[in-house]
Amino acid sequence: VTMHQKDCDGYPNEGSSERCKEEMNVMWYLAIVQLVQQEEDGTYFINKTEIEDFPSFQYRGILLDTSRHFLPLKAILNTLDAMAYSKFNVFHWHIVDDPSFPYQSRTFPDLSSKGAYHPMSHIYTQSDVRRVLTHARLRGIRVIPEFDSPGHTQSWGKGTPNLLTPCYKGSSPSGTFGPINPASALSYIFMSQFLKEVTSVFPDPYFHLGGDEVNFSCWQSNPDVRAFMQKMGFGKDYTKLESFYMENIVNITSNLNKTSIVWQDVFDYHERIPKDTILHIWKGLPAQYKAETSRMTKAGHRVLLGAPWYINHIAYGQDWRISYNVQPLNFSGTEEQKKLVIGGEVSMWGEYVDATNLSPRLWPRACAAAERLWSDESQTRSAEAAFPRLQAFRCSLLRRGVRAEPLSPGHCSDEYRGI
Amino acid sequence: VTMHQKDCDGYPNEGSSERCKEEMNVMWYLAIVQLVQQEEDGTYFINKTEIEDFPSFQYRGILLDTSRHFLPLKAILNTLDAMAYSKFNVFHWHIVDDPSFPYQSRTFPDLSSKGAYHPMSHIYTQSDVRRVLTHARLRGIRVIPEFDSPGHTQSWGKGTPNLLTPCYKGSSPSGTFGPINPASALSYIFMSQFLKEVTSVFPDPYFHLGGDEVNFSCWQSNPDVRAFMQKMGFGKDYTKLESFYMENIVNITSNLNKTSIVWQDVFDYHERIPKDTILHIWKGLPAQYKAETSRMTKAGHRVLLGAPWYINHIAYGQDWRISYNVQPLNFSGTEEQKKLVIGGEVSMWGEYVDATNLSPRLWPRACAAAERLWSDESQTRSAEAAFPRLQAFRCSLLRRGVRAEPLSPGHCSDEYRGI
Repeated sequence: VTMHQKDCDGYPNEGSSERCKEEMNVMWYLAIVQLVQQEEDGTYFINKTEIEDFPSFQYRGILLDTSRHFLPLKAILNTLDAMAYSKFNVFHWHIVDDPSFPYQSRTFPDLSSKGAYHPMSHIYTQSDVRRVLTHARLRGIRVIPEFDSPGHTQSWGKGTPNLLTPCYKGSSPSGTFGPINPASALSYIFMSQFLKEVTSVFPDPYFHLGGDEVNFSCWQSNPDVRAFMQKMGFGKDYTKLESFYMENIVNITSNLNKTSIVWQDVFDYHERIPKDTILHIWKGLPAQYKAETSRMTKAGHRVLLGAPWYINHIAYGQDWRISYNVQPLNFSGTEEQKKLVIGGEVSMWGEYVDATNLSPRLWPRACAAAERLWSDESQTRSAEAAFPRLQAFRCSLLRRGVRAEPLSPGHCSDEYRGI
Repeated sequence: VTMHQKDCDGYPNEGSSERCKEEMNVMWYLAIVQLVQQEEDGTYFINKTEIEDFPSFQYRGILLDTSRHFLPLKAILNTLDAMAYSKFNVFHWHIVDDPSFPYQSRTFPDLSSKGAYHPMSHIYTQSDVRRVLTHARLRGIRVIPEFDSPGHTQSWGKGTPNLLTPCYKGSSPSGTFGPINPASALSYIFMSQFLKEVTSVFPDPYFHLGGDEVNFSCWQSNPDVRAFMQKMGFGKDYTKLESFYMENIVNITSNLNKTSIVWQDVFDYHERIPKDTILHIWKGLPAQYKAETSRMTKAGHRVLLGAPWYINHIAYGQDWRISYNVQPLNFSGTEEQKKLVIGGEVSMWGEYVDATNLSPRLWPRACAAAERLWSDESQTRSAEAAFPRLQAFRCSLLRRGVRAEPLSPGHCSDEYRGI
């Protein structure tokens, strides 16, 4: 086997060149593994081959949501294995959210002891996190955690008094809580300390700050927040308050030497965000997300495309074809703008997903996006031509212990041995 | 625990009263199991309780399709366990179809040795079948096999020369084959011998003969079939030919002391079928299947309702609510007609389902139909009220080793221990 490699300097990964070489080595290994074939008699062999290969997009991610349902470590590690086989290289760990806070913090242990579904069995300890990081690194996969705020933080409030905004009914607190309180200095002190911890636990240069779906009604009800709005001269425009909060959080993160990723809402509400912030598109049909990509890249931001690959939304039949037919660069913009699309991400949100059904929902459906993000679009336009390839790949996932579901009637020669 | 039982004579099961008592005993056992609760400290207990309970419908079935994908024995046995917990009492085993023939016949071993996906690893031996029958019987579940003909028989042809109709292109055979050849005496001789075997292997008094989706184009192309049509005076009406075939098959089955079940197509094409034949509705939206139920019961036939519960058709979110809101008796007809609806069946067709995803697609979604078929409709109209019950039941399935998927964000106290 002789292999040619695109020079690592040209590889569009902004991490250290060490990191790039490490990833390349893993890709070489995986490329070789893909070449292994089996004779009728069971012998394995590799044909003499030359490989010239490189990815179309540097960022090829999968999001798992461990808050709506807790995913045992085994399920995450198994997903990382399957990601490596499919040449995904980013695990976007949407680790906490409203329903539960499974991350066990060194600095604030009450976050998980009071905010997880169970303080012992449904948490990720520091050692669990390290295991995920190591498992991922050895497979050429970056781990980008998301600690989404100021919304999606109900579970944070359980172990952190005074962090969330108390909602009011008339002139007195209603007993419920809204997003993180952007009018309180305590919020920023807490977030600084907390982000200091988690940015050191997760070594990747990128860090996902969320910023989506902030509901303003609780802020509007709270007299302290209203007073703060007045003091800041925001009028009645709560998007200004949200932007104020996000700017602070992005700055904190920037001082911790991380590049921030935020959901599109932050850009939609307020365009004054640092240019190096990466924007993550999650909303809309093709017409909408294409227009959004144009606007964001025109403003000079790097863009991550998530909207077309929310594959937690299931449908009957071969819906992988929809994922396959996405054209991430088919939007109105200059060549310079197109270069700002760093890649895409498949999301498996957890409303209806836990370890009972994660693997068969994710595999092989996610592989359609994997090929789109790795391969040259001009060479891989036909879903018809991809189909037999995907079928064979699904069988190889099964053989390697990934519970990947079938795409059509038939069988795999070694099915059920691995799972 | 004191229990009251509806007198077994009144229990609408036409099987022997022995069989009825056996099923009742299992139901008693399962009712008791359902009462077991757990203290905080782990102790199990049962509150003093009186139970008065009986099913609304005598036939509460689940169809598994082992032809489009082979299901290992373990997957079938696990499904039977979950069926018992949910009070399903009929396993409709759609054992063979076009893609593969996994049933290993004593009389015609070539059917599976040439028609299965694999002649050794992808078959059900006689001993496998006995294991399924025993496992089912001990859980109060009847096993009704389906050997669908004359269509859906491509896999039969591989090991049975001269059974299928050779299709013609112009004046010569095209090399492809259509449904079983209804013009050849050999077909009836084969079917007699084969049905003699399988009706003795499967002891249930009901037997499913299929009869759906017969494509006439191959028959029309074949000169022998055309000559037969003329001889019989069928004109150009191939539904008459299909009816001729089905009448013969139903008669053979009747002589083997079985009650036939056939798909609605047989009734739709030709109403002259023995009155004791049970008709299985599988087509259409509520308006259609209700009208069909009216017509069939008016003609004096017993009816099995499948159409609203094709839950292999998945959708995002809580689609169990659709299954739950079905009203099997809400059709236009007399009280006598309503009594002819013997029950319903949940279908899990196998186009996109094998052992990788069977359990989480089936459970707990099938439980919505289970409650509809067991419980008094007037007491169980609200899906809202059923939801917490279903959530708790899903957790108990998980604890018992059934990979049942989640219905909403959350967790179960013992999740992942059983699976």
